[in-house]
Amino acid sequence: MVQVSHWCRVAIDGATHIGRVRDDHIELCRGDMFNDPRPTGECIDVQDAVWLPPVVPGQFLGLWNNLHARQQVENTLIPGFPLYFVKLADSVSAHLRDIPCPDALQGAVKFEAELGIVIGRRCHRLSANEVDDAIFGYTCVNDVTAPQVLFDNPEFPQWCRAKSYPGFGPIGPVIARGIDPDSLQVQGILDGAIKQDYPVSDMIFSPREIVRMISQEITLQAGDVIACGTSLGADTMQRGQTIEIHIAGIGTLHNTVR
Amino acid sequence: MVQVSHWCRVAIDGATHIGRVRDDHIELCRGDMFNDPRPTGECIDVQDAVWLPPVVPGQFLGLWNNLHARQQVENTLIPGFPLYFVKLADSVSAHLRDIPCPDALQGAVKFEAELGIVIGRRCHRLSANEVDDAIFGYTCVNDVTAPQVLFDNPEFPQWCRAKSYPGFGPIGPVIARGIDPDSLQVQGILDGAIKQDYPVSDMIFSPREIVRMISQEITLQAGDVIACGTSLGADTMQRGQTIEIHIAGIGTLHNTVR
Repeated sequence: MVQVSHWCRVAIDGATHIGRVRDDHIELCRGDMFNDPRPTGECIDVQDAVWLPPVVPGQFLGLWNNLHARQQVENTLIPGFPLYFVKLADSVSAHLRDIPCPDALQGAVKFEAELGIVIGRRCHRLSANEVDDAIFGYTCVNDVTAPQVLFDNPEFPQWCRAKSYPGFGPIGPVIARGIDPDSLQVQGILDGAIKQDYPVSDMIFSPREIVRMISQEITLQAGDVIACGTSLGADTMQRGQTIEIHIAGIGTLHNTVR
Repeated sequence: MVQVSHWCRVAIDGATHIGRVRDDHIELCRGDMFNDPRPTGECIDVQDAVWLPPVVPGQFLGLWNNLHARQQVENTLIPGFPLYFVKLADSVSAHLRDIPCPDALQGAVKFEAELGIVIGRRCHRLSANEVDDAIFGYTCVNDVTAPQVLFDNPEFPQWCRAKSYPGFGPIGPVIARGIDPDSLQVQGILDGAIKQDYPVSDMIFSPREIVRMISQEITLQAGDVIACGTSLGADTMQRGQTIEIHIAGIGTLHNTVR
């Protein structure tokens, strides 16, 4: 198991920096986040940080129907393979950025609190014991969704479109390494009220199993993000509301709907 | 209207080169395909070319239910917005490359002959008269699909997974510029037999309208590819069969299933 560490990307004077978060400061680093980045010796205060998405995923997948609690309530079939859709590049957003609610969707935008897996290296057809080495770490994902659009056409659910509006995929604030994903608890907190609160251990496919299974069919790349699906309690957000995705051991991803 | 020209990428001694096809030879070029590439003065014979995908799309979208002839036979609703799914990076393939048929899918892999739009520049919220400038050109796409996988889970059609196996997205051989997409005819030819033969003018959303509409919601980038959907006649391929996507004015994309 690698040492516990928390990685981020921040903007300073318009330039992108990799950083490692330690308590109330961020140690800036040089190099590639996935390939042994080294401290520059510079630090900034966490409070001064302009957060960027901790990675820019080339592939940003999200799972549907991966939590037993929700599957039981909604009485859906237990899937035999992780059921995934894609969130497009425009959706990727960062801690503290606003979630823009398109005018056409007013009052019908949902948050979904999810654990995100960040892939650390190119991988294909992983065996179970190779998976941990292929995963860089874990982050918080808000899989924002426009349900109206998703089910607008009764013949073709528009998963990708409904989940890919600009800013509909906040991730961060950090990627945590060296933590055990199966013991994590995921919370979705709307204007301070806990709306979602579920354990990763309730997943139908565990994070490691998701990566192993999807890698049997496609090649995953460093920086790819897989959001592991959500449980009960995902709810509608109104403009002006703040939504936090909190996972103890990772952090709190905070955004406001505008 | 820009001048008619045909652009490709080829591998020479393991290096990637941009080229412009003229009759039986390819003029190699330097620079960015989307930003005024210039001839190097070198040429190769078309027959000697090792074809690469003419672009590596960051976003590779495909449409469902965009041809009137098919929509009428299948008695589906006429969509109000282009209905798209994503083909992942692993699917992207090239002229003359084999289409690998995963063992699990034997006998159940379909070709779909489609026109592909190649985006030439970053664009968002295009007006109708800006669309042509944002489109670099047009190419042939074989939107290979595993229908078994697509409908394996009755609650969640797995569009992305069924269309993203390695090599399931041959594109090319070239990108044609300066042609009128609306007058093109798309053919799918299996072992020499014409199985699909339909006009782009039968599309529910024309190529330009697809780009205009999708760009209202997301940002498209240079190199993105949108496959415009297929019509009647898409059929199953067996190992050893050759499939050609032919669009007069663009070229013939030839692949064999293995």
